[in-house]
Amino acid sequence: MGRVDSDRLWADLMALGAITEPERPYTRRSFSPLFDEGRAWITERMRDAGLQTRVDAGGNLLGRRAGKHAAWPAIVVGSHSDSVPSGGRFDGMAGVIAGIAIARSLGERAIELEHPLEIIDFLAEEPNEFGLSCIGSRAITGCLTEEQLSLRSPKGETLAAAVGRVGGDSARLPMAPRRDIGAAFELHIEQGPVLEREGLDIGVVTAIVGITRLEIEFEGSAGHAGTTPMQGRRDPLIAAAHMVGWVRETALQLANSGRGHFVATVGIIEALPGGSNVIARSARIVIDARSEDRRLMDEFRERLDAESASAARAANVERSKLACLSDTRPAACDPRLQTVLAESAKRLGLRARSLASGAGHDMAFISQVAPAAMVFIPCKDGRSHTPEEWATADALAAGADVLLEAILEVDRTTASP
Amino acid sequence: MGRVDSDRLWADLMALGAITEPERPYTRRSFSPLFDEGRAWITERMRDAGLQTRVDAGGNLLGRRAGKHAAWPAIVVGSHSDSVPSGGRFDGMAGVIAGIAIARSLGERAIELEHPLEIIDFLAEEPNEFGLSCIGSRAITGCLTEEQLSLRSPKGETLAAAVGRVGGDSARLPMAPRRDIGAAFELHIEQGPVLEREGLDIGVVTAIVGITRLEIEFEGSAGHAGTTPMQGRRDPLIAAAHMVGWVRETALQLANSGRGHFVATVGIIEALPGGSNVIARSARIVIDARSEDRRLMDEFRERLDAESASAARAANVERSKLACLSDTRPAACDPRLQTVLAESAKRLGLRARSLASGAGHDMAFISQVAPAAMVFIPCKDGRSHTPEEWATADALAAGADVLLEAILEVDRTTASP
Repeated sequence: MGRVDSDRLWADLMALGAITEPERPYTRRSFSPLFDEGRAWITERMRDAGLQTRVDAGGNLLGRRAGKHAAWPAIVVGSHSDSVPSGGRFDGMAGVIAGIAIARSLGERAIELEHPLEIIDFLAEEPNEFGLSCIGSRAITGCLTEEQLSLRSPKGETLAAAVGRVGGDSARLPMAPRRDIGAAFELHIEQGPVLEREGLDIGVVTAIVGITRLEIEFEGSAGHAGTTPMQGRRDPLIAAAHMVGWVRETALQLANSGRGHFVATVGIIEALPGGSNVIARSARIVIDARSEDRRLMDEFRERLDAESASAARAANVERSKLACLSDTRPAACDPRLQTVLAESAKRLGLRARSLASGAGHDMAFISQVAPAAMVFIPCKDGRSHTPEEWATADALAAGADVLLEAILEVDRTTASP
Repeated sequence: MGRVDSDRLWADLMALGAITEPERPYTRRSFSPLFDEGRAWITERMRDAGLQTRVDAGGNLLGRRAGKHAAWPAIVVGSHSDSVPSGGRFDGMAGVIAGIAIARSLGERAIELEHPLEIIDFLAEEPNEFGLSCIGSRAITGCLTEEQLSLRSPKGETLAAAVGRVGGDSARLPMAPRRDIGAAFELHIEQGPVLEREGLDIGVVTAIVGITRLEIEFEGSAGHAGTTPMQGRRDPLIAAAHMVGWVRETALQLANSGRGHFVATVGIIEALPGGSNVIARSARIVIDARSEDRRLMDEFRERLDAESASAARAANVERSKLACLSDTRPAACDPRLQTVLAESAKRLGLRARSLASGAGHDMAFISQVAPAAMVFIPCKDGRSHTPEEWATADALAAGADVLLEAILEVDRTTASP
């Protein structure tokens, strides 16, 4: 049974967090000079930990530790070092630094694995100026398209050029999917309240939800708020507001149906022209729905379609748009790796539960080319993407210990190739 | 029975409308150079019609026609010549030009009234860069305060200075209320669909609604739309959306209660921070409610208070604000003048009905110092404040004829002082 150096792990994470825009902690956006600075620091730490570093064609930073069998598929531990603006010091970084701590622990105890071990800092997991997240993990899995590589930043740089700028190789893009990964793990803060609320140490992720974003627009007739009688109005906000309540009620119902994680949220609502004395001409909502089971999502979309059509009729307006803005499928975590993680936690005396990830992660892409799994650790008040984002040093060390334990187990029990 | 010259009335109105920002018809905002140009043109027309013109301390343009008794209170016909940006050619202007047509008709037939007649172009009835409407009619009724006169435009000019710039006398501001008005009339397009829908020529206005603007803000907890389970969310948009539906239902109920004109509208809704993947931290709606009977408004506000508190509890959020942004009382039109208008319409063979004005008008202020009344004429699709705003030449002439007829009647039957 191996243990990571908790103090060193924590000190490294805080040191990486300190590489931030000074007036806007904690900000280290992908493709920025500070991102390069953070990467240079991570590269140093990887080399200190005995890893051989390189940047792949997709701009991912890899630290590799040889195993006994050079040709065997690698065991990967990865997450991302980029942040959102005014984000935190844990989301992504905790997983990268935990990977380095694991490599260091193996090195200090001179443990040679059967398989190569790779610690990966995936490029640009967070939203960025190209409007595309998970760029590095998309690249590794062959999902990064020519069209996406032609996306331009507001300054006019193409994504391909930006990937080149961080050390990627645009001539070798798009990458072919990597087929040499035997198992992939990611440690991440939960970003939700469940583990903290239930007093647990470890979450074993069952699936990374599919995310469907839908936009509904209703059109009616603008009118003078004083002179247009209530009877005969065609106010599209009435239909939009009805849908806000319906989305919540229906999501509650589906979430309580025992068929897995389901949430749906209206975070954007707009009435145009938006004057206090004008009956709206149009009203728009954007719905973010997430499910670990595609059938729940299909059911939700079908009911949403019927209900929004009926809400439009009731308000005597048109449903002028029901558009799918984006749609990703749920990614199941590998059942065997889930079991290994749960048993590792148990052996370490940690309290664990299974839960779905309601947020997207690089592992959702990696799971397309390799068995992939995730460990969640509790975070304060379930918050993330804010400077207040927080997890304790103990929670972090516990998560890294579980990963290390699981890696040893997978390495021992997986006959490759 | 006198009749105005319909062709001349129409030609004048179109000529005034042509004084507009060329790229943004029809725009002639108060205090702009084009406004001065429009006023110069109106002054010419007033003088042509035999009126003696002046600008009062409050910046109103007055055209006066002497009566037999110089000391008797004046009969006033007034409206406004300023427009909203990209507005129409009828709202306000129709009332000013109709007044001039009436004076011309009297002059051409050498009719000397008992009372002086005053045609008034009230200053700045529409929203403007000082954020205060009905500036001229407020001034005449002594309602324009020192505080309002200190309001500044974005360019830093005070309202007092701007009134001086259009010919007012800031040294005599605030004005004392005028006590020499015996009766005041305003012709205006309805700005609503009722007369057109019912195939009527004339609306005799019973009251100008009181307008109450209320803002409600709910505060909850922002959260990640994917990782925060449906149970335990504190989503303030749920409460705000509920209130949108409730406002409509309750306004319908009050409007149908037979207790006079009532409307309520939510035209502004906002969820913050307003990201598709973020449960809102706060949600805000602005309610515009209008009633010709203050008791309906009081009842609405009382129920709104109770319902929004209960909506907050149901959504487990705080109602952090319930604010009254503005509140004006309904202004009843003078019953005797209403009767005179209705009888005048009948004598002219025109189809008329009584109705409340859901929009604010200068007459709401004038009614505080004199018996005041309004004539509505139908407008196309009930629309106003748009370049498509339209009324026919016949409808306009019919309205002016009713006013002229009513003025003759009031002049004949009112022993003053």
